[in-house]
Formats: sequence, C-alpha cells, structure tokens
Amino acid sequence: MNEQAHREAFENADIGIGQEIYALARRLYPVCRSITGDGVRETLAILAEHIALERHEVATGTQLFDWTAPQEWIIRDAYIADAWGRRIVDFRKHNLHVLNYSQPIRARMALAELKTHIHTIPEQPDLIPYRTSYYAPDWGFCMAHNTLLAMEDGEYEVVIDAEHRDGSLTYGEYLHRGASDETFLLSAHICHPSLANDNCSGLALLTLLARDLGRRATRCSYRFLFAPGTVGSLAWLSRNQAQVAEIKHGLVVSCVGDGGGPTYKRSRQGNAFIDRAMAHVLKHFGGGATIIDFSPYGYDERQFCSPGFNLPVGLFQRSAFGTFPEYHTSADNLDFIRPEHLAASYHIIRDVIDIVESDWTPVSTNPKGEPQLGRRGLYSALGGDKAGAQAAMAMLWVLNLADGQHSLLAMGERSGLRFADIARAADLLRTHGLLREADGA
Amino acid sequence: MNEQAHREAFENADIGIGQEIYALARRLYPVCRSITGDGVRETLAILAEHIALERHEVATGTQLFDWTAPQEWIIRDAYIADAWGRRIVDFRKHNLHVLNYSQPIRARMALAELKTHIHTIPEQPDLIPYRTSYYAPDWGFCMAHNTLLAMEDGEYEVVIDAEHRDGSLTYGEYLHRGASDETFLLSAHICHPSLANDNCSGLALLTLLARDLGRRATRCSYRFLFAPGTVGSLAWLSRNQAQVAEIKHGLVVSCVGDGGGPTYKRSRQGNAFIDRAMAHVLKHFGGGATIIDFSPYGYDERQFCSPGFNLPVGLFQRSAFGTFPEYHTSADNLDFIRPEHLAASYHIIRDVIDIVESDWTPVSTNPKGEPQLGRRGLYSALGGDKAGAQAAMAMLWVLNLADGQHSLLAMGERSGLRFADIARAADLLRTHGLLREADGA
Amino acid sequence: MNEQAHREAFENADIGIGQEIYALARRLYPVCRSITGDGVRETLAILAEHIALERHEVATGTQLFDWTAPQEWIIRDAYIADAWGRRIVDFRKHNLHVLNYSQPIRARMALAELKTHIHTIPEQPDLIPYRTSYYAPDWGFCMAHNTLLAMEDGEYEVVIDAEHRDGSLTYGEYLHRGASDETFLLSAHICHPSLANDNCSGLALLTLLARDLGRRATRCSYRFLFAPGTVGSLAWLSRNQAQVAEIKHGLVVSCVGDGGGPTYKRSRQGNAFIDRAMAHVLKHFGGGATIIDFSPYGYDERQFCSPGFNLPVGLFQRSAFGTFPEYHTSADNLDFIRPEHLAASYHIIRDVIDIVESDWTPVSTNPKGEPQLGRRGLYSALGGDKAGAQAAMAMLWVLNLADGQHSLLAMGERSGLRFADIARAADLLRTHGLLREADGA
Repeated sequence: MNEQAHREAFENADIGIGQEIYALARRLYPVCRSITGDGVRETLAILAEHIALERHEVATGTQLFDWTAPQEWIIRDAYIADAWGRRIVDFRKHNLHVLNYSQPIRARMALAELKTHIHTIPEQPDLIPYRTSYYAPDWGFCMAHNTLLAMEDGEYEVVIDAEHRDGSLTYGEYLHRGASDETFLLSAHICHPSLANDNCSGLALLTLLARDLGRRATRCSYRFLFAPGTVGSLAWLSRNQAQVAEIKHGLVVSCVGDGGGPTYKRSRQGNAFIDRAMAHVLKHFGGGATIIDFSPYGYDERQFCSPGFNLPVGLFQRSAFGTFPEYHTSADNLDFIRPEHLAASYHIIRDVIDIVESDWTPVSTNPKGEPQLGRRGLYSALGGDKAGAQAAMAMLWVLNLADGQHSLLAMGERSGLRFADIARAADLLRTHGLLREADGA
Repeated sequence: MNEQAHREAFENADIGIGQEIYALARRLYPVCRSITGDGVRETLAILAEHIALERHEVATGTQLFDWTAPQEWIIRDAYIADAWGRRIVDFRKHNLHVLNYSQPIRARMALAELKTHIHTIPEQPDLIPYRTSYYAPDWGFCMAHNTLLAMEDGEYEVVIDAEHRDGSLTYGEYLHRGASDETFLLSAHICHPSLANDNCSGLALLTLLARDLGRRATRCSYRFLFAPGTVGSLAWLSRNQAQVAEIKHGLVVSCVGDGGGPTYKRSRQGNAFIDRAMAHVLKHFGGGATIIDFSPYGYDERQFCSPGFNLPVGLFQRSAFGTFPEYHTSADNLDFIRPEHLAASYHIIRDVIDIVESDWTPVSTNPKGEPQLGRRGLYSALGGDKAGAQAAMAMLWVLNLADGQHSLLAMGERSGLRFADIARAADLLRTHGLLREADGA
Repeated sequence: MNEQAHREAFENADIGIGQEIYALARRLYPVCRSITGDGVRETLAILAEHIALERHEVATGTQLFDWTAPQEWIIRDAYIADAWGRRIVDFRKHNLHVLNYSQPIRARMALAELKTHIHTIPEQPDLIPYRTSYYAPDWGFCMAHNTLLAMEDGEYEVVIDAEHRDGSLTYGEYLHRGASDETFLLSAHICHPSLANDNCSGLALLTLLARDLGRRATRCSYRFLFAPGTVGSLAWLSRNQAQVAEIKHGLVVSCVGDGGGPTYKRSRQGNAFIDRAMAHVLKHFGGGATIIDFSPYGYDERQFCSPGFNLPVGLFQRSAFGTFPEYHTSADNLDFIRPEHLAASYHIIRDVIDIVESDWTPVSTNPKGEPQLGRRGLYSALGGDKAGAQAAMAMLWVLNLADGQHSLLAMGERSGLRFADIARAADLLRTHGLLREADGA
C-alpha cells in the first residue's frame, strides 16, 4: 500500500467516530469559554453527557506553584454602537469580539481613543482575531479590519458588561482505571471560546475516546484532563503530586480536526516510549506526518515538561499551532474541521494506545537456528501471495529478535514493519509455543 | 585514483584467479544438486580436487535443533511427452525442469490437470524458473511460459522418476588452522542445481580461496563450509557447538560472479569487526558498492545470526539476491557470470582477510609532539610526488592515533585512508622504533 | 536577520579593530623571518610595543622531545646576476626569492646547473613561491616562472650570503592571568617571511586581542604563544609540561585576513568545549562557515594534539590553508588581507572567549511548572514585537532546561538560539531570583 493510499485508508477508517466527534465539537463551539467562569462549567456539563466526568473547583487565590488561581470572569454583553445606536460589533454575534477576560467598561468615546483598544488583523481584513488579557488588566474589542475601516469619525458607545469576582477555577477529570497504576495522561485545554479546531476538536475527541476506552479492560490507567491552559494544568499538578510519578505516557491534544499534519512534538525527554510509539504510528501514517523536537512554547506540555516534572508528555496536532492562517481567528470555525480528519486523529491516538497496551518482550523457545515454521503450517505463504509473505517476514523478524532485549515496538522500529503486524506474528508464534514472555517483563 | 578507475583496477587485478574460479564454476554447473543426494556428493568430489575437503554425512532423521535431517532425493529422469512421444520438457536437457525434491509420478493426464503442476514466469516467457518443494510433498515441472502456451489440449505422459529414501544429509568442510583458534567462517550453500551465480560462483570462489589460504601461514583459523541451505548449516551448528564460540568473523558467500553490487549485508550485530572491515573495503572499492542492514531473510546468515548464536556473520554478494532478473531462472547460466567479476569478488574477500590478519594496535614511542621523520629519511616526500605525500599522511595519521586506543582499522576509518596504506606506514614506523604494540593486544 | 545580513553585520562590527590589526600586520610584513634568527626577534619587538611580551631563547642543540633546537640562520643578501651584473632576482626586493634557511653559496654557473636550484610555479607564472629547507641542507632561489623563461643560456653569478651558527631558537609568550588557572591557549606561528595572511594576520590579531583582554578581568587565564612552527611549539611544550594540564581550551590562529571561510578544524578530541563553542559561533556567523574534522596535517595543532598531549586545541582560519591560490606565494601580500575580514575574525574569537568566560549551569528555583513571568514584568512582549518575542523564548528555554544538567552553551545548542541571547535571559532570570547556580559548578 503506498503512502497516499494508506493515508486515505486512515482517513476513511470508521468515519462514524469522526461524525460523532464533529457533532460534539459543534455543540461546544458556541460556548464562550475563558480560563474561569461558567463557560468552562457549561462545557464540562456537555462532556459529562458522555463520560462520568469529575468536576473540580479550585478557589480563587489558591497557590498553584508560582501562580494563583485567578478570579472568575462573568461576561454578559459587549458592543460598540454608533450615534444611531446601531451595534457595529456585538458579543452576542461572536464571542471573539470581546478581548477574552476583558475588564468592564461603559463609556462614550471618540473613534481615535477607542482605536487604541481595538484588535484587528490587517493582512486578513475579514477575520476577527482571538485575543486575551488574562494577567494584565485591560479592556478591548476584536473585529474585522474592514469593519474598522468602515467606521466613521465621531463618538461611539462602548459597553463591556463584564465582572471579575472571587469564585473558583474549574477543571474536569476522568480516570479509566486499568489493571496497573501505570498511567497515560490525555489532556486538552478548555479555555478557548468559539474556536473549532483550537480546541473544541480536542475536547470532543478526548471525551469520546474516554467513552470508548471505558468499555474496554486495559492494562494501563488512562487519565483525561480538561482544564484551562497553564493555570488549569498547574492546578491539577499541584493537587496530584502523588499521582504524577505514575504518569508513564502522555499527550496534550489540540487542533485535531483540520487536514494538515499530523504533527507530533516530542516530549522534553525526546525518546520516551510515547515519543517512539508516536513516531512509529506516524511513520506508517503516510505523507505529511511531521515530528518536531520539544520546545518550551505551545500548550500545557510546557507545564508537564517543566524541569521539576519532566513527564513523558508530547503534543499531538494536525496542523501545528501558529502555522495555519485560520489559527486564532474567526476562520477557525465549524467549516474548518471535518469528520474525516477527526476520525484519522482518533485512530492515530488509538493506535498509540494499542502499542502501549500490547507491547511485550518475547524470548524464543528455539533460539538456535530458525524454528521450522513449515512443519507447523506457519510458513506456507512466503514467496506466494503478498500478505502471506509479509506475515512470514514478520514472523522471521520476531523470531530473530526474540532475545529478551527487544520489545515488539523495538522490533517494529528495527524491521520497518508495522507494530500491528509484529504483534499479530508474535501472538501466533506464542500460541505455537515458539515464544514466551521475557522474565521480569 | 577516481572511483571508476579504482573499480576497474579491482576488476582487472589478477584476472587469472577469476579464470580459475570460472573454470571450476563451469564444472559444477551441470550437476543436479538438491538439499540431499548424490548431486551434493558429486559437487564435493569436484571441490576436493583442490582442497583436502572433509565430507560429513548426517543420517536421515537426525535432530538438527528444531529440524530433522531430510531423506535423500534420487532423481533419474523426468519429462512430459505428447501423444507422439515427443518430450516437451526433459530433465536431461535442463535440471531446472523438475521441481527440486519433487515426489515421483508416472501418469497420463489432460493438459488442464497437468497445468496445476506446472511453474512458469509469464513476465519472462523464455526462461525456466527454479522452484523447490522440500518440506511440503508435491510434484511438478518448471518450464518456459512460451513452451506452455504452445502445448495443445490433449493427454500427456508425465514422468518423474524420483525417489526419497533414508540415507544422509551431506556437507563438506575444510579447516585451515592458523596460529590462533580465532576462527573466520566462510560458508556457501551447495543445494542449488544448474544456477551459475547462485551458487556455483560461491562454491568455486571459496574453494580456490581455501586452496590459496592453505599455502599461507595465518594468524586466524579459517573454516570453509559447503552445505545445503538451512538444514546444512543447522547440521554443522548442531554438531559443532563447542567450535561456535571461536567464530569471530564470518561471511556467507553467494552470487559473486555477476557485475552488480558488490553488496554486503551486515551481521545481526551490525557493527562487528567483519561489518567494519567489509565497510572499509567496499568504501574504497568504488561506485556501486552497497551496504544493507541485517534482515532475517536470505541465506544461511539467518541461522548463524539466530538469537541463540548471534554470530558476527554477514552476507557477501555482487547483485543482492532477488534483485536481478536472472535470479532463480535458467538465465542464471554460465554467460551470466564472468571471470573479471569473480576475480573482483575474490579480491574483496581477500582484502577483508588481510585486515583480519594484519590489524594491530600501535602505541607511539614518542607520543609528545611528532617524531622528526625527516631525520630518519621518512619524510622526504610530503609536498613532493603524490604517492610520497600519501605515504607521509598515512605516517602522520598512524603516529597521531597511536595511543593504544586505535587499531589500524580504526585508523583507516577515521583518516579515510586505505587499510593497506595505514598498515604499510605502521610497519615502517615500527621498523624505525617509533611504534610498539599495545600491551594486551 | 538572514544569513547574508548577519554575515555583513559581523564583518562591519567595529571595523576599527580591523584597521588596527591591518596596520600591525603591515608593519610585520616586510620582515624576513625564519624558524630562528633576528627576523623572529625583530617581529617580537614590534608585537611588544602592544603587550608585555616575554621573549624566550632556547639554545641551539637543546633537546625538544624528538627534535633539537636548530641553529640560527643569518641572511644578508642573495641574488642571481647575469653577465652584465644585472640582478635577475634579488633578495632585497622580495625575501621569498631565497629558499628559506638556505645554505650559503657564492659561485658562477651555467643556467642548466643553476636551474636545479630554482623553484617556480609554472601554473602561476608571475608569482614567487615560498619554499623552505629547514632540515635537509640545500641552497636555492624562488622566482616567477616567467622570469626563469626569460633567462638566456650562459653563466650567472649566484650569491647567497647566509650563515648557520649556534645561537638560539626564539619565541614570545604573553600570559593574561585570570581568576582561575584554567587556561586558554592562543598560538600563532612566527616563522613565515613576507606572507601577509600566513601569518602576519594571525600574529597581529592575537597581539591586539591580548592587549584588549589585558584590560579586562577574566575568569580564565589566557596564554598567547608566538613561536616558529613545529620546533617553537615543541620548545614551549617541553619547557612547560606542568602548565600543559591547565590548558582547557586552545586555538591555533593563522590566515585570518582573507574573505574566505571562516574555517574551524576541530581538535583531535573532536567534541571538546572549544569545538562546541566554535561550532556555535560559526553556526550563527552566516554563510560560508565550515567545520572540518581534525587531521594531523596543518599548523601547530599537530603538536598540541599529539597523542601524548591530546589538548583541546583547534585551528581557526578564514580560507583553509592550501585551498586558496595565493597560498605560499608572493600573492599572499597586503592586498590579499582586508581590515573587515580581520575584524570579523577578531569578533569570532572574541565571541568564543565570551562563551568560555560566561558559561554557567543554572538551576530553576521554581522547577514545577513555569514561573509566572508576567507578574514580574518579564513577559510583556511575547506575541508583540520580534525582539521581545525572542527574549521571551530565550527565557522559556533557560527555565525549561534549568535542571542543573545544561550549561548555557548546551541550552544554546538545544534551542538553536544564540549564546548571547541565552546568557542575557539567564542573567535577567537570576536577577529576579528565578535561577541559582548549580552546586559544584
């Protein structure tokens, strides 16, 4: 199967799950989220329709390492109206119009003064940018540059009916307990308002993945975290320091609904099991897959990979953040994400989970020379049909590397064969008594 | 000397040995070999005209690790005759016509039924394929596809006058004992019938190499093995387990008479001395040389590199098996192999043996600063003629790396100079008292 | 800043120092130097106008490891005159005309005989070659090939008024003592006569660098060596064996005035701190920078990197020796070197010294999660102006890698950012109490 064909196969596999994820992302899209406040709670309530989500509230002012839990933000309305009372921009039409976490204002002012509080993208004059001001108190509006250009001099009514008050920071958590405490962390930020790819896509995908995993008995435990960026992950880390040591694998998931990439950013460790497993899956994904080194800029992998934790947590995306023109604009809408891309993203993560679940280290029971596969009916096909030949090659590789030093993933890496083919061959050989599990593995 | 020129020099060096190897391969070519039987014995008898070959017989049914020694195969005649008694295919004309190790048959049957036992290559319609059925009892014929197309419907007389009976598996061995037990294994499969490159070429080359080595006092011992594929090497391994630990270097040799490659497939260890030495020789061979990673499909390196042995044994070929159109067809005939290619293959292996024989680890007797070469008449040439300059560079490299941590091969690897030039420089410097051998080396 | 722009910035930075170096090189150019004799002393006297240079004299015949200090060479005059007494070549016009270290001669001889003592470059017929004969007694002249072609048959007067006598080998040394004994060796050969790039450029650059360093308090000590090639460095090494262990970094400097390269040849160790620091600076230098592996041919790095010392000493040049057509000819004159190239070379070495001086290993005081930079006014700029964004990225990298395992240079290597930017960020973070120095560092 060539790269293009394989890629298409990936995209088309079980499109049903892609449609489910899309439908959920669509429900999340209109909600006005921020790092705190009811938007986050409303979002978690929607997710909780699918999984037994635990909601956590962290009181305003709680120390979160070097940070403190911020006040809640309540936003009721926001607009700029002209002399005739016509709303030039209106928060009710698009929640990107208000600077996220903006201070309140209620004033009349000349355009010149107002402009210093207006954010636009002159290069993309029809799009509303997404801007925030979480830690430097400010007020502002975001709008299409063309709208700004059309505004005439004169006085405007400027209203942001918002409030900051003590309350709590909210995050959601779902734990699927497996046979062991070895934990796989899957985390998506919940603080962005109406941006479909960044990150309704990630929230929806992880929720339905959690639902599907919940139906399955697993070796690992899986911890799903839906938290506002930075302070949310710091809140979880600060309250769960005992659990941190159990995290052996992790992915931050965002922007998984567009057709770019896929892109994997390695953990700070660089060659952790998750890094190797993602590299393996993406190598076989087909064209376009890109693996980039860790850097301390991005999403919550910044916190998980800070030197005091240094967790094996990478970042999974389709197009890398900041690289697509729709990024952090109103064009990151429900047209920008597609069920087939969501399905492919889901299957990539599921394939990685399959590797984490099914990797083991075999030892050959006949290490001297090859065992006679033909006598056992295992070798009929080599030189015959292609699938049979590939299955036979997988058996030969597994037997050759079954020295107790190579796990199935290592065999896949060395042979260039897919983990799934290696695992299938190893199962068959174990069934025939030709392999046993390495001691202490 | 540029690559092309060097390659030509390699090919032309001592063409006499190429002609000798070719003549011997030509004698081996007509014999109908199989994994057992008189074809192997006849072949060994021809080889024994050149070296004191020991013949070993392993009784049918003997346990060879997971395998057993197969029955002998006796083939007397095989043909398909039409209604007029004309032989359409005739084993006496080409021994590839019969499925190797075929069951006997004597019957009349319609073409339709017969066809299910006929092997052809539709893409190469004039060639007879080479097919075997060692471990799944079957009967069959191999023929040119065009011959098959020309056969008219009707009844045919089908005869394979063959027999399987208890007897023994046969292999040949020749040991050239050197000063130490450190052993270099050179192995060629002896089970293929009339295929010139695969492997009359390997059998002939190794036999004459053994003859030539026999005239020389060596540091290492050299063990030559001429055995049927898989079961033959397993037979040797199972009967010589005490000797296995002495094998420090090894090459499986096949398809060494065509003009492709040369190709070296690394041992499973990947960076054994043999892997480094072959890489060094092929680097300086010139264009076309290819080094590929170990994989568990090929010739008897599969057995030598099984996890219970993991011997430092690589595979040396010209064109890699399976990659040339003549492979496993009647086109692999005496026109396909050429004395000049056989000579080049011989010289490559001989150069590797030279490295194994002459590598040592020098220590400078004047490690602080360079010794004054000019005063000793060793430095006249630098900046003068090219050969002199190269000789001087070799001396400078040897002196600089003579810290007891670099063997001559390591010096060749780091400097990019040929082993032979490094070795010559080291000899000269030792003669002048500027080097001594490292302790414990 | 793109590569070309950066390169230009490097070249234009502080052109004043380039002009100073050029002026000093111009004063050195006319002096007729050799491995011994008054030319070396005269050169050192000029350098001593800028720094408190120590002059060392090593008596003729002194053992220098495998070598001995050679006799002094006194050269007073040399010429070839025709039958009318006209000087065809005249040492007073160009000191390259006499074979350096030539034996004396005073004779009349036919052109045919004279020719065996004449060196020219037929491919560059207008240039005088530079030739020496230090260790094989010989006499000779060097001249333009066209001059030779114009000489008519007949008898010539041949005079080399030279003398070899016991005396001493001379070298100069300047030590700038820093806070620690950790020593950086900077060495330039002083034995070449009128060749501007090779090595008036190196002598002048190092002298003014020594002057500038002398005005600065440094952590390391800096040892500058101005010595004749081979025997000079051997003389220093043999007399300073106790100091050798303190040399932790070193550069041999030659041919630093032309517009090629820059070229860095790694130390024999290959990955010493100096190798990493030079690679870092040259990576950010822009186009043309080349790093080559150590080889035992070149300048005095041959001695410093001999196996008995194996010092971390590399070679810094612009065009690599032997690769430019002016090399070792009369075309290596004052037109071939330029103030802007000398300035760039100076700045490269100064940047490397900055790394040696200012590298340290930080540990984060807030290792769990990122510290809140915004609260401290450190994070205003990310997403804003480019310089601010870059400064913020440098802070994020430093904080992320501040685990006590990464020095600032290692952070620069991993992040791809410049050492200077990393160092500035680390200083700022330390000032804000966010970093401390690793224990034992």
